[in-house]
Amino acid sequence: MKKGCPFGTHRVIEPKGVLPQPATKIDNSMEIYDNEILIDVKTLNVDSASFTQIKEEAQGDIEKIKEIMMSIVAARGKHQNPVTGSGGMLIGTVEKVGPALEGKTNLKVGDKLATLVSLSLTPLQIDEIKEIRKDIDQVDIKGKAILFESGIYAVMPTDIPENLALSVLDVAGAPAQTAKLVKPSDTVVIIGGGGKSGMLCLYEAKKRAGITGKVICLGHSEKSVARVKNMNLADEYFTADATNAVEVMEKVKEATNGEMADVVINCVNVPNTEMASILAAKDDGLIYFFSMATSFTKAALGAEGIGRDTTMIIGNGYTKGHGEIALQIMRESEILRKTYEELYA
Amino acid sequence: MKKGCPFGTHRVIEPKGVLPQPATKIDNSMEIYDNEILIDVKTLNVDSASFTQIKEEAQGDIEKIKEIMMSIVAARGKHQNPVTGSGGMLIGTVEKVGPALEGKTNLKVGDKLATLVSLSLTPLQIDEIKEIRKDIDQVDIKGKAILFESGIYAVMPTDIPENLALSVLDVAGAPAQTAKLVKPSDTVVIIGGGGKSGMLCLYEAKKRAGITGKVICLGHSEKSVARVKNMNLADEYFTADATNAVEVMEKVKEATNGEMADVVINCVNVPNTEMASILAAKDDGLIYFFSMATSFTKAALGAEGIGRDTTMIIGNGYTKGHGEIALQIMRESEILRKTYEELYA
Repeated sequence: MKKGCPFGTHRVIEPKGVLPQPATKIDNSMEIYDNEILIDVKTLNVDSASFTQIKEEAQGDIEKIKEIMMSIVAARGKHQNPVTGSGGMLIGTVEKVGPALEGKTNLKVGDKLATLVSLSLTPLQIDEIKEIRKDIDQVDIKGKAILFESGIYAVMPTDIPENLALSVLDVAGAPAQTAKLVKPSDTVVIIGGGGKSGMLCLYEAKKRAGITGKVICLGHSEKSVARVKNMNLADEYFTADATNAVEVMEKVKEATNGEMADVVINCVNVPNTEMASILAAKDDGLIYFFSMATSFTKAALGAEGIGRDTTMIIGNGYTKGHGEIALQIMRESEILRKTYEELYA
Repeated sequence: MKKGCPFGTHRVIEPKGVLPQPATKIDNSMEIYDNEILIDVKTLNVDSASFTQIKEEAQGDIEKIKEIMMSIVAARGKHQNPVTGSGGMLIGTVEKVGPALEGKTNLKVGDKLATLVSLSLTPLQIDEIKEIRKDIDQVDIKGKAILFESGIYAVMPTDIPENLALSVLDVAGAPAQTAKLVKPSDTVVIIGGGGKSGMLCLYEAKKRAGITGKVICLGHSEKSVARVKNMNLADEYFTADATNAVEVMEKVKEATNGEMADVVINCVNVPNTEMASILAAKDDGLIYFFSMATSFTKAALGAEGIGRDTTMIIGNGYTKGHGEIALQIMRESEILRKTYEELYA
């Protein structure tokens, strides 16, 4: 049995020397290397940007969508949309575990899992596309995939319905990072607290900041803020346009008696919210950018421009145990579970 | 006397509600608000990208360069190049200190300073352009400027020549952040250690990591690595292409007996070096991206894609005392001072 690299570089066909994600073609033969896991795939959860592009290209025609998906995998060995560059995740059952992983993984044959690593780097073979659920970007297939040694996954819980679990796992990094960052008595501002990841962040922030801390929810719409308020997820709530830095600063100033926040977590998926995040934080505060619309240079030059010594962290979608931490929220909070089921599952 | 906002929003003319940097027009009248500092400007150190663009537009003609610069300031109230968006810094003498700053600043009338905040947000009035030094992007003028309460600056040292001090202050954030991040016995990799900011980072890293730590310099060219080696700035040296993540990982693995780095500092100004930085670090390591070519999404998705729990920090060009920390290196290290004088002053 051939020995593999933890990151899957052994499967890169071209260009040579890169990792599987930037590669344009990877080897999707289903004979496993010693440190790989073979998965019998049930469902692909295609990235929303990618699936929208495919649907448009196919003009909504199901057979055409199938054709495009098959051609992507045939060309690249993985379901990485050449236009958007993005992938998605998959659900399946463990079929084989490479011998080099013994003692390194708890996975065993028959376990049902969701991969939390992108389809844009996952070797995939599609034998047949069985059903396409256009509205929720899900595609049932007959096929196989490979999980690399460094690939992250979550074993599907038995007490949480599959679609609910998937919605939660999709944003698992945000609440898990919040849980690790927020300390007792911290003042925390969650920008975009009314959204899918924001709500989970609020819940974790309140739990960790505790009775001596203060959690402030900044939402864009009255509706989402009212929903979060109804769930009692924060200590203070306000609506503001997160691209208006001065407005946000004034409102946070008011809510904190001029002290500002120890931790600011940005969950907004619109551009130009860097400055509001910086101004909401204390001079030595910490800002966690979970938003993928964050501009590195706007954040860096923004803080320098006003002489702020804040620590600004690039949101990492992965942290140890993030799936478990996020799913646990659905067990602990009945009202969040209900809201999540209504909105996202 | 009118009361000002610490960030200078009181001078924004359009669009309303933004900070001075993103504003397209600010008020450059030279009557100070209560928390402003009036500077008699001697020299503008125009941002390199901006000055290159202006020189090209002027086809190298000095009078045309003057005309373009005057028109930028007339239109915007600040020297922010409309094409590149960037500014630069200035050197001048304190002429007035607003009364609200008493006890808040050490600056006094007559002090010679360099502003470390961008010209792209600094109210500026040019009466006359006296001399243009095309090769080093410096322009002597007769004119005035305003420093906001939040604006950062460095008082020019008396024991370090002006041009040398300016070169050091230009990259002051990098060594100062290094000094704050690196702890005794840390293993540190500086990517781009042979460059202008990289050399200063190596010096600070070695000082902080100490005899029980290990500082590794990764340079792009044999020449720059040989120069750094000659100055004895690190414990180990190698050349590698920082865009080749796997090559960098293998070399760092070898240099650290497979342990990898506690801290990785990226000072390279080319794109696509995020993955090399991530792979050079331990799983729970810390990566500091000083490179302005860093892509937020490449870093975020890169770490997630291989399941790495690294903390990734957006380089902040400002940290308390950064000017002092960086200038001090020129006093401590004779050989670095000599090299800096040869290369950059």
